Amino acid sequence: MGNIVYIGTSLDGFIADRNGGLEWLEAVPNPDNDDLGWEKFLEGIDAIVMGRKTFQTVLGFGVGWPYPKKTFVLSSTLEHLPAGFEGEVEIINGAVAGILRALNFRGYKNLYIDGGTTIRQFLSEDLIDELIINRLPILLGGGVPLFGELPEPLLFEHVQTTVLLNEMVMSRYRRKK
Amino acid sequence: MGNIVYIGTSLDGFIADRNGGLEWLEAVPNPDNDDLGWEKFLEGIDAIVMGRKTFQTVLGFGVGWPYPKKTFVLSSTLEHLPAGFEGEVEIINGAVAGILRALNFRGYKNLYIDGGTTIRQFLSEDLIDELIINRLPILLGGGVPLFGELPEPLLFEHVQTTVLLNEMVMSRYRRKK
Repeated sequence: MGNIVYIGTSLDGFIADRNGGLEWLEAVPNPDNDDLGWEKFLEGIDAIVMGRKTFQTVLGFGVGWPYPKKTFVLSSTLEHLPAGFEGEVEIINGAVAGILRALNFRGYKNLYIDGGTTIRQFLSEDLIDELIINRLPILLGGGVPLFGELPEPLLFEHVQTTVLLNEMVMSRYRRKK
Repeated sequence: MGNIVYIGTSLDGFIADRNGGLEWLEAVPNPDNDDLGWEKFLEGIDAIVMGRKTFQTVLGFGVGWPYPKKTFVLSSTLEHLPAGFEGEVEIINGAVAGILRALNFRGYKNLYIDGGTTIRQFLSEDLIDELIINRLPILLGGGVPLFGELPEPLLFEHVQTTVLLNEMVMSRYRRKK
């Protein structure tokens, strides 16, 4: 546990297509709407930390705030929240390491880190403890990358791999230090 | 079968580090020198097609030609082979689709496609039938990428995933058309 990434990606490491679209995530048929372990994962975390772009994407779904856990939105530009989100969402701003200390102090220990920019920033500072990556069997050939440049390689250990719906390979890794 | 990629990559999709190095492939201990299915894979193919850079990397190992199958080296600049390789290695030159027709006509149907540039070229022309990808639990953060830009997404179907040495996740995919 600690800071956890849980994300779907194409075989070539994109989390959204060239237009920012997510339709390709439906390339694998899921007739029974299996939640792929999502609810169980959410139960195990204390809060969500996401970037502004991801926040606005979720807002754009127009279904209210869909997460059952307190959400912190990293942003230096967002000044206030849309009405109705005040209890569930909080804007935070500043250096990532300091933000983490503050959240941990407030009792939020197991954090779901979401959004490409935010994930890449956490990784570049070696602040991710677990990676849960669900690979879909598609090459997008372009789009929003999950990973970015790192100052040095980061070694993980493999915890578990599960094949979901016969098509998706979900692997869980823990940072090896 | 058909045109097959069989390759090891980092979690972030690199097949060599920033210096072209492969030492990180040894990040996973392999005390019994398990060949990870390599010999069996080589038995099932008719020939190897690789790019010039990969060819020169293999030559650099200085152990003679290590593959048990006929190898075709794609190159427009290489004019002749080092002495002793004439029987095992052949230089080919031209457009990929034409080369494939010629090799198939000569009876080489199941081809192991190797080398980053060559793999990316085959994928960009949708000429790969199978991908066998072995993911090591490391983020390199830079290096030689396995995948490149594609004119359009390519859908695959998942065939099988095996965890090797408790650390590597080897998945096999077949092009879905």
